[in-house]
Amino acid sequence: MKILKLPLAVAALIALPAIGFAQDADVTPPNSEIGYILTTFMFLFAGVLVFWMAAGFTMLEVGLVRGKNVTMQLTKNMGLFSLAGIAYYAVGYNLMYPGDGWSINGILGAFSMTSLEPVGLADTETDLTYASVGSDYFFQLMFCAATASIVSGTMAERIKLWPFLIFVIVLTAFIYPIQASWKWGGGFLQEMGFQDFAGSTVVHSVGGWAALVGALILGPRIGKYKGDRTIPMPGSNLPLATLGTFILWMGWFGFNGGSQLYMDTAANVADISRIFANTNAAAAGGAVAAMLLTQFLYKKPDLTMILNGALAGLVSITAEPLAPSLGLATLIGAAGGVIVVLVVPVLDKFKIDDVVGAIPVHLGAGIFGTLVVPLSNVDASFFVQLKSVLIVGVFVSVISAIVWLALKASVGIRVTEEDEINGLDMAELGMEAYPEFSKL
Amino acid sequence: MKILKLPLAVAALIALPAIGFAQDADVTPPNSEIGYILTTFMFLFAGVLVFWMAAGFTMLEVGLVRGKNVTMQLTKNMGLFSLAGIAYYAVGYNLMYPGDGWSINGILGAFSMTSLEPVGLADTETDLTYASVGSDYFFQLMFCAATASIVSGTMAERIKLWPFLIFVIVLTAFIYPIQASWKWGGGFLQEMGFQDFAGSTVVHSVGGWAALVGALILGPRIGKYKGDRTIPMPGSNLPLATLGTFILWMGWFGFNGGSQLYMDTAANVADISRIFANTNAAAAGGAVAAMLLTQFLYKKPDLTMILNGALAGLVSITAEPLAPSLGLATLIGAAGGVIVVLVVPVLDKFKIDDVVGAIPVHLGAGIFGTLVVPLSNVDASFFVQLKSVLIVGVFVSVISAIVWLALKASVGIRVTEEDEINGLDMAELGMEAYPEFSKL
Amino acid sequence: MKILKLPLAVAALIALPAIGFAQDADVTPPNSEIGYILTTFMFLFAGVLVFWMAAGFTMLEVGLVRGKNVTMQLTKNMGLFSLAGIAYYAVGYNLMYPGDGWSINGILGAFSMTSLEPVGLADTETDLTYASVGSDYFFQLMFCAATASIVSGTMAERIKLWPFLIFVIVLTAFIYPIQASWKWGGGFLQEMGFQDFAGSTVVHSVGGWAALVGALILGPRIGKYKGDRTIPMPGSNLPLATLGTFILWMGWFGFNGGSQLYMDTAANVADISRIFANTNAAAAGGAVAAMLLTQFLYKKPDLTMILNGALAGLVSITAEPLAPSLGLATLIGAAGGVIVVLVVPVLDKFKIDDVVGAIPVHLGAGIFGTLVVPLSNVDASFFVQLKSVLIVGVFVSVISAIVWLALKASVGIRVTEEDEINGLDMAELGMEAYPEFSKL
Repeated sequence: MKILKLPLAVAALIALPAIGFAQDADVTPPNSEIGYILTTFMFLFAGVLVFWMAAGFTMLEVGLVRGKNVTMQLTKNMGLFSLAGIAYYAVGYNLMYPGDGWSINGILGAFSMTSLEPVGLADTETDLTYASVGSDYFFQLMFCAATASIVSGTMAERIKLWPFLIFVIVLTAFIYPIQASWKWGGGFLQEMGFQDFAGSTVVHSVGGWAALVGALILGPRIGKYKGDRTIPMPGSNLPLATLGTFILWMGWFGFNGGSQLYMDTAANVADISRIFANTNAAAAGGAVAAMLLTQFLYKKPDLTMILNGALAGLVSITAEPLAPSLGLATLIGAAGGVIVVLVVPVLDKFKIDDVVGAIPVHLGAGIFGTLVVPLSNVDASFFVQLKSVLIVGVFVSVISAIVWLALKASVGIRVTEEDEINGLDMAELGMEAYPEFSKL
Repeated sequence: MKILKLPLAVAALIALPAIGFAQDADVTPPNSEIGYILTTFMFLFAGVLVFWMAAGFTMLEVGLVRGKNVTMQLTKNMGLFSLAGIAYYAVGYNLMYPGDGWSINGILGAFSMTSLEPVGLADTETDLTYASVGSDYFFQLMFCAATASIVSGTMAERIKLWPFLIFVIVLTAFIYPIQASWKWGGGFLQEMGFQDFAGSTVVHSVGGWAALVGALILGPRIGKYKGDRTIPMPGSNLPLATLGTFILWMGWFGFNGGSQLYMDTAANVADISRIFANTNAAAAGGAVAAMLLTQFLYKKPDLTMILNGALAGLVSITAEPLAPSLGLATLIGAAGGVIVVLVVPVLDKFKIDDVVGAIPVHLGAGIFGTLVVPLSNVDASFFVQLKSVLIVGVFVSVISAIVWLALKASVGIRVTEEDEINGLDMAELGMEAYPEFSKL
Repeated sequence: MKILKLPLAVAALIALPAIGFAQDADVTPPNSEIGYILTTFMFLFAGVLVFWMAAGFTMLEVGLVRGKNVTMQLTKNMGLFSLAGIAYYAVGYNLMYPGDGWSINGILGAFSMTSLEPVGLADTETDLTYASVGSDYFFQLMFCAATASIVSGTMAERIKLWPFLIFVIVLTAFIYPIQASWKWGGGFLQEMGFQDFAGSTVVHSVGGWAALVGALILGPRIGKYKGDRTIPMPGSNLPLATLGTFILWMGWFGFNGGSQLYMDTAANVADISRIFANTNAAAAGGAVAAMLLTQFLYKKPDLTMILNGALAGLVSITAEPLAPSLGLATLIGAAGGVIVVLVVPVLDKFKIDDVVGAIPVHLGAGIFGTLVVPLSNVDASFFVQLKSVLIVGVFVSVISAIVWLALKASVGIRVTEEDEINGLDMAELGMEAYPEFSKL
């Protein structure tokens, strides 16, 4: 992911030491304008793929909630993605890249709306060593929105619409950008040597922490836990959940690949290729591991675990999708798949009701992926990785808790018992997702 | 969008005055072959995204029709996209770009089938200032097909299959290409100074006019209006409608971004980035506006309005996605979302039955988007914009009316009352879309 | 598709004689690094599109099976795609491109795991005439996985999960790569002059043969054939089947377009454009032909035939998507559509139960497409094409039969009669795809 806009060579030294050697190879970069065009276009391609993940989260979630809450889940996802687009424009983007190191000007800059380069780059003294601001903004916005998407799945089927959306605004305007600035804005985690290539921590664990804290404050769905027993509440539409997983898998090529940040040299494009191949390998590893493990543990492969296994594989490789070999990427992904299968029952034991499994996938595998970066990246320190995970975790958890509790104390965050039992679609929206299909 | 193939500099002066300054920037274009490769590849990327909109329209429509008409809606969409591919090849493309100004040769050229450059460009004296004919054809075809997709939604649930498809052939072979040639083929609207970057008028309002006239001639669905009351006929599958909206949103990046027409310079790729960011902002604005307004008016957010609000935001920004700031793009999109919420009941008041809301989205927001171009583009004149909207509207409405009335008088366009009540799927196709799910 | 990595000029002469002229055009290639970046990026773009076909096959298949077997079909598709990713990495890729002509080193190389170029290309003496290994591997893997996807549809609703997945491993580790090496690895079919641009034979017929042999050994579903009558077993979700078809159509642009293998010159990118346009034309031709023919034969257009008609059009053009004119591409596709409509009842007559129609689409149209290459490609010989089709067919059929029979004799390949009647979802997986929708 992007760090503060420094000249290319410096940026590569600071942010991407794993590819530092690339600069030594006997490879003359093409002229800077072509490099600028190529990198910018790469961001647009990758950004569209990450955009597409919004649809993936939506389909995954509506496939895994019960039929009576599907319209609400659709509404939440349309709402969160749209509001993220406004909040990140109005506040988040400049807050994440504060510019002149928090001087007075920097502070003013940090609290200003995003403005793009002028049409035709006409009046700008253009630096062609990176990419256009528009493409960078577009790409970064999609990461911010993905963070919010993670939260919506965990808290489905019982949270009120508007309080959820207010949390999304705070998350995408402030929480995500502030902690992201510590790493990708050139802040103290970056200076400490924290390695998080595409955001196992900065994106996925952040969504996961916010979801975990929210789930704790919100409480489980009615009827989910009876004494020590967990009552299954099967998803209403598994084809859509599977489609959502394929969409997310597809989008992840852009998520991880685009985080190379440059496509102006042979070395950079070859690295992006490595990332694509490794990303796919990790997802495959996660799916297969979950499939084998559920067959072994429960005598039947469990499709929802397989889907989440693939996603956990993807999250696991996100902190370092470049350095591992294909084989190691497969194994890291497989470990992610194992984590999901093992963590889901633990959450249930603690009566933390995570409707779609977002906490094991994004938080569990996100932490895991961040901690195993030193396996393949010699510049990473396990201690620094762990410390960074904790710092981000504490920050996001505390702020999220404050926001959730404030919302709970003021407008309330949970629908009434009656509405929850009847389903949010009719109670809050008056619109069924499948009005013609009779229910069992 | 493309205008007649003129040398780059001239084209930029005529068609894209808003970026005229780009040519003055201190930016030397890369060599022409690389520019040709980049622009061509950009068209392929953008064209695939616009292709994908065909699936988006299909999912949106089958999500919003009732279960008994779903197979028919799928069949219509597969049919219309395929027939558009043949009609635009056989007639439309050359009619839209008539070449030598309607001389004798021009007329012959205008009525010839499309032929691409030879394999390997071998025998052609290649002009490398633009892009390959194949990529241009591919991109333009998808726009033509999108126009036809707009019509199918409005007239769903009661129109016969084959008459609808005959209309599609006329639309994609003649109506769309002829009026598009007035603007993008270098015709009189272009000369008049009409500004329509990616087709709020040329594509969306054209589909909208054809749909409006068709709906008037076809009449509303049985039972839709009882006296002054409008009877809700809820869509059968809202997840698919939402998926369709996400697909369309995704495809729109190609629709608007590709209409920059060149990706051979830093200035052009930066402009494409602006367009991507603005397009997303407008969609977000439209969705949020519709969400807030339905909450305010009806005390409940309305998902189908939110979906159409996002689409209306996209249509609104399509006439000028480059010049506005991110904030203005958001506001223009929001206004589009408001238009949808306000126009839907007006249509119902006039008993114009638009099954999926295509008329407010594509016609309403299409006109609005065209008229507000002068807000951000100093080269646009409100009067010219209005005049062009009216000219295109009258042309498309009159010709469409003639075709619809001719079809009505000859083969008939409406299914029998009995078939409509039983559903078109069993009556006309003998195939249910969801044969196993029992209906209420 | 790729052949063994030879220097560009030689490769073009051997593999792509149809574009040989391109080298003569007055077109100086850009410098090699830019060519390398462009070609690599093209592979990533095309590879993502072909990846997406995995979701397309999945949606098509779950739309066409009955509701009681949907979770199983989802599980099979997630499993096959993930296992293909591991098998092709561990064995397939190097087996397909055996390197030094099967010398001792070659044999060792052929049985080694895939390793990508180092990060940043640092220590490699980089040949920049082609593309990065990572991008090539990524693209090729998706082809291999597509072959496996073809098999799963035909054998749905009665085959056990794990034996199917074991077959997938054999197919993707050995069967597909070995025969693919004969053509794309520079083997004897390539030397013989066999023309198969993107794999009508190498991919589609291979999947088709494996499916055909499997279907014969597995036998039809219970109740499918009563005496001479074929009992219709309608698909449970036609919108998803249609969505799957649109996804496959979209993916095919990458499948055929990426098989140009180079995007480093104007000639190459113009050829890719031709391929995109021709691919779309063939799909449109196939859909329209199937629509007209079913209207003519059965008095009603048949949506599932239209979907398979579009796919058959795509398969038909895959052997030579570059050389035909748009008109010829439309006709070749239309012939593919006709083949599907005519072959489906023939299979039923022989009581070969192909749940989704994969045999007519991928085998029928795959053979047809391969045999008509000489229509447009003067370097192709009908006799060589036919001979190659037969060699591949015999090889794949024999090996597949051995594997299926061994699986049948050991672990068994068919679920019990009771499980088949109750549905595989509850019997083998204990998880319904649509648990809330009551069934008729």
